[in-house]
Amino acid sequence: MLSVKEAQAKVLECEVKLKTKKVDILAGCGKVLAQDIISNDFIPAYDNSAMDGFAVRAVDIIGADKNYPVRLKLIKEDIPAGKVPDITVESGFAVPIMTGAPIPAGCDCVVMKEDALKEGRDVLVFREFYEGQNIRYRGEDIKKGETVLKSGKKIYPADIGVLASIGVNLIDIYKPPLVAILSTGDELVDINHKLDEGKVRDSNSYSLAAQAREAGADFKMYGIVKDDKELIRGKISAALGECDILLLSGGVSVGDYDFVKEILADTGAEFIFWRVNQRPGKPLAFLSYKDKFIFGLPGNPVSVMVCFEMYVRPLIKK
Amino acid sequence: MLSVKEAQAKVLECEVKLKTKKVDILAGCGKVLAQDIISNDFIPAYDNSAMDGFAVRAVDIIGADKNYPVRLKLIKEDIPAGKVPDITVESGFAVPIMTGAPIPAGCDCVVMKEDALKEGRDVLVFREFYEGQNIRYRGEDIKKGETVLKSGKKIYPADIGVLASIGVNLIDIYKPPLVAILSTGDELVDINHKLDEGKVRDSNSYSLAAQAREAGADFKMYGIVKDDKELIRGKISAALGECDILLLSGGVSVGDYDFVKEILADTGAEFIFWRVNQRPGKPLAFLSYKDKFIFGLPGNPVSVMVCFEMYVRPLIKK
Repeated sequence: MLSVKEAQAKVLECEVKLKTKKVDILAGCGKVLAQDIISNDFIPAYDNSAMDGFAVRAVDIIGADKNYPVRLKLIKEDIPAGKVPDITVESGFAVPIMTGAPIPAGCDCVVMKEDALKEGRDVLVFREFYEGQNIRYRGEDIKKGETVLKSGKKIYPADIGVLASIGVNLIDIYKPPLVAILSTGDELVDINHKLDEGKVRDSNSYSLAAQAREAGADFKMYGIVKDDKELIRGKISAALGECDILLLSGGVSVGDYDFVKEILADTGAEFIFWRVNQRPGKPLAFLSYKDKFIFGLPGNPVSVMVCFEMYVRPLIKK
Repeated sequence: MLSVKEAQAKVLECEVKLKTKKVDILAGCGKVLAQDIISNDFIPAYDNSAMDGFAVRAVDIIGADKNYPVRLKLIKEDIPAGKVPDITVESGFAVPIMTGAPIPAGCDCVVMKEDALKEGRDVLVFREFYEGQNIRYRGEDIKKGETVLKSGKKIYPADIGVLASIGVNLIDIYKPPLVAILSTGDELVDINHKLDEGKVRDSNSYSLAAQAREAGADFKMYGIVKDDKELIRGKISAALGECDILLLSGGVSVGDYDFVKEILADTGAEFIFWRVNQRPGKPLAFLSYKDKFIFGLPGNPVSVMVCFEMYVRPLIKK
C-alpha cells in the first residue's frame, strides 16, 4: 500500500495532454496561454508627456527657482492627448501640453502645471527640470518584436491590459481538461428524486463537478449507473472517448458489490496505484488509459471531496 | 483631500442593491445565496452501515476477542447498499452488510469485515463492538426542517454536495453587480486599430473588464467616447440606466480637456469624494446616482488597475 506522499508523487508524474483553442482575450483571462505573444508595436508608440504642464527645452530653465522664475513665451496652441503637434518649439518658448500628448519637436522635458504660472502671453517656470523629465519615451514599456508574454503563463487581468495595448484580441489558450464524472451504485438516485428507504441522492457528481470547475477544468456529468458490469463498462468507455480525466465515485472498494476494479482492468486501463494508506479517502485508485487518466474515488461524500483536493486538483492544475 | 483610508471607508459605507435570480446549483457555485435552505429530508434518510461487515446485536458479542471469538450464525442474505432488508435479525445471528446499506431490524451495531471470519454457515467475531458502533443514524448529518445554509453565504463545492444530498437543484442567488465600463479620451482607439501617432489603444476597458469578472461581477463595455460633452453625457446616462456600478477611465483630472467632472455634476450624481491623496491613482472620484455608484478612474493603465483593486473590488465584494 502506498503512502499519501508516494501516491501524490505518482499523480504528479502524469500530465494531461491538452489541446489548444483560439479565444478572445477576455475569455482567456484565468486560462493558460498556449503561444508566445510578440509585440508589433512600440508602447508608448511615441514620446509623450507624463504630466499636464508645459513642454520646454531643459536648457532654457536651468536655475529656475521659486524666487527666480524663468520667463518663457507661451505658444498658444496647446496640445491635447490624441493630437499630433505640427510645431517646432524654439528656444525661449513653452507650449501647454496634456498628459499623454506627443512631445513637440524641439522640446525635451515637461514642466509640471503646478510649477508654472501663466502670465499674459508668458509662462513663469519655478523649478528646474532635467532633459527627459516627465517624458515617456517611445518603446519605454514595450519594444516592437519583444516577447511580452510567454506560452505557459496563466493570464491575469494585467496581462489582458498588455494584450489590449499591443492590439492583440485573439489568443491561443490551452483548453481546460475535460473531466467526466460518473457515479456508481444501486443505492443512488438522482437529486430530483424522492428519498425512498435504502436510497441516497447522488451528491458526489455535483460536488465533484463544482470542484472540477473551481479547479479550472470543464466537466461533463455521466450520471448514475447501477452496479451492473455491462452498464458500467458502457458508460466508462463512452466517457473515455470524450474526456481527459474520468472520475468514478463509489464502487472502488473491496466489497462484494464492487465490480469497478475488474471492469477497469478489462478496459485495458493500467493501474498506477490502487490502495493508499489514508483515512478518510480509502479506497482510491488511479489508472491511465492511453493519454487519459481515471480516478476511482470513494463513495463517501466527504472522502470523495478530500480525494479530489489531494489527487485530482493537482493533476488538473498541472 | 481625503486620505486613502478615509476614501476606502467611504466606499465601504456604500452598498450595491443586488437583485436575485434562480439558478441551478452548479451555476450557483461561487455566488452568494439569497435564501435560507431548509432540508425536507433526514440525511442519512435511514440508519445505515458505515462499514462493510456484519450487522449484529452488540449484546451477542460482548467479550469477543482474538483468542476468544464469538460464533454467530450467518444469515446468508447479505444486504447491499440500496436494498432494504425485510428481515429481523434474532439474537445469535449475523447478516453480511455493505457500507451504506440499511441496518436490518434487530441489529444495533456492525462488526467490521476485518474483525470477522466466515466459517461455513457461521461467522467468527474477534472484537467487541458497542451499541451504535459503525452505524450512521437517520438524521445524524441533517435533520428535516433544519436550516442547512443561510442567505448571504458564499456557495462552495461542499455546499453544492449538501444541496444535492437534500434534493435541492434550484437556488436563489444574488445576481452579481453589473459593472459598466466606459473610456474617455480623443487619444484612444479600439484595440483592433492601428496605432497612428498620438493614439493609444484603449487597454483600460479590457483590464477593467477582466478585473470586474475576476472580482465576481458581470460587465458591459461601453467602448470609447471622444472628449465631447454631449457624447459623454449620452453614454453615461445609457450606462446608468443598466448598470449597478459605472467605471469611467481617463478624463477625471484637472486638465483643460477633462469635462467629465462637470458632466457628472450635471447628471445629478452626488460626489462622495473627488480627490484622494495617493500616487499612483490620482485623480480618482466616487459618486452616487440613485442606487448606483460611479467611479472616475485615472487614465494611466497601472493607476486604473490599482484604483480598481483599492476601491472598486471592495465594493463589488461587499
